Amino acid sequence: METIGFIGLGIMGAPMAGHLLDAGYELVASDHRRAPPRWLVDKGLRTVTGHDTVARTADIVITMVPDTPQVREVLFGEAGVAVGLTKGKLVIDMSSISPIETREFAERIKALGCDYLDAPVSGGEVGAKAATLTIMVGGSETAFERAKPVFEKMGKNITLVGENGVGQTTKVANQIVVALTIEAVAEALVFASKAGADPAKVRQALMGGLAASRILEVHGERMISRSFDPGFRIELHQKDLALALEGAKALGVSLPNTSTTQQLFNSCAANGGAKQDHSALVRALERMAGHQVSE
Amino acid sequence: METIGFIGLGIMGAPMAGHLLDAGYELVASDHRRAPPRWLVDKGLRTVTGHDTVARTADIVITMVPDTPQVREVLFGEAGVAVGLTKGKLVIDMSSISPIETREFAERIKALGCDYLDAPVSGGEVGAKAATLTIMVGGSETAFERAKPVFEKMGKNITLVGENGVGQTTKVANQIVVALTIEAVAEALVFASKAGADPAKVRQALMGGLAASRILEVHGERMISRSFDPGFRIELHQKDLALALEGAKALGVSLPNTSTTQQLFNSCAANGGAKQDHSALVRALERMAGHQVSE
Repeated sequence: METIGFIGLGIMGAPMAGHLLDAGYELVASDHRRAPPRWLVDKGLRTVTGHDTVARTADIVITMVPDTPQVREVLFGEAGVAVGLTKGKLVIDMSSISPIETREFAERIKALGCDYLDAPVSGGEVGAKAATLTIMVGGSETAFERAKPVFEKMGKNITLVGENGVGQTTKVANQIVVALTIEAVAEALVFASKAGADPAKVRQALMGGLAASRILEVHGERMISRSFDPGFRIELHQKDLALALEGAKALGVSLPNTSTTQQLFNSCAANGGAKQDHSALVRALERMAGHQVSE
Repeated sequence: METIGFIGLGIMGAPMAGHLLDAGYELVASDHRRAPPRWLVDKGLRTVTGHDTVARTADIVITMVPDTPQVREVLFGEAGVAVGLTKGKLVIDMSSISPIETREFAERIKALGCDYLDAPVSGGEVGAKAATLTIMVGGSETAFERAKPVFEKMGKNITLVGENGVGQTTKVANQIVVALTIEAVAEALVFASKAGADPAKVRQALMGGLAASRILEVHGERMISRSFDPGFRIELHQKDLALALEGAKALGVSLPNTSTTQQLFNSCAANGGAKQDHSALVRALERMAGHQVSE
């Protein structure tokens, strides 16, 4: 079994690391900014100082940090992963970051004789805890086969979608569909509710047909019961749609509804909702209509 | 068993009427414009002349016609249903039409001592043939209970959502969600494909997570395999979104993505796609990007 370095033991990373320890992997982390969670140390997590030391100690280094600049810092900053890497090691970035910069990061890691996978996930904290994450992987077949046993400890639906960057592209595509489907359900419920329909009955009627989706089920219910505790925060979805819109500019693609939906998220943030669940997008439409879906 | 009059034996109406005949109902139709399909006559369908005569003969009159003006003509035109109605009869409009005018139609029918249900369906020709239609009903509890055995011969997911007009409102809400989810999947696939990802693998990866929907499954597949034979025609979805946008104006609701999506359907129609399946919406985005999701 290969030794794994894990950088980023936050809300997502900690339970993922826990599953690897449970599966018997030797796991090493840095106390760079703060000490790792006690419960992981109790499970056998070893602590070293510096990301470069993590890279020296481990065969596979996993990063799970908030955004593109943090991945860049962790990999290529002072005492970063790149400093400690030696030939044959594998870097797996499981953060959700820019597909374009991912390609650059992969090139730089490969130039050191190592391999690189971008492997962002969806499923949130619930999926991380239950080891049911969807994992969208970009990179070589060889690196994917090497990482697969590790992925299988953390997720369920694991797909090699293409070369480096394509994992991140797929995650962006996922976030486009999720945001725009939330927006679709929100338009429908605001419309129906203001027309005098009971939104709960409308949701029920729609669940039987072509409009059925996980979003209508989960987020539609949240809009009706006014349950806007995250879940997945609006400010994170704003980050993801920003990646989509930057990508659209760079690639030459028009994403009209992604663009409008980002404006609605902006409106939510402007009204104090940045840390609410993304289903609270409905509030932007409610403000425009002067009408709430339900009390 | 009550005698049923059936007005509108088209692509949807004919198989629905067939199920009622199979269930043993006495069924009567008018040869007003053209003779009813031969196979329905062979099953026992009785033909009379004039919608008024249909209303005189039947206890329950079902209408299943293309749009609001046709319902108005059939109900209130010369020799229309209203002329032949006597107290205690039930009119069920299963067409997809304006919720606002539906309320007017219901008032006029009820003023004759009859009852009225709006009961639009979703599920298309496939659902009509398989008797698995979703039926969204507006009207009184009493009328709903009376009609329920009839609905159960034609559909599966049958919901009384509210008073008259609310069935049509729910259908509009359904069509908003369907159109905007198709648009969401289209934006995601155009983005991912132009970024170099294999759209089939992206769709597969997304099916496992929060982006999962019947639309991603069915229409996503159609976009990739370029199968744009209807299905449900773009020109019909344009009609439904027009009802949504008129309703938005009348009710005081903002539907930004419904509005943009209608413009994309308009672009499809302008390029000869009015009679293609609504999944061909992707073509509007493809033209904007100068790139096709797949060959």
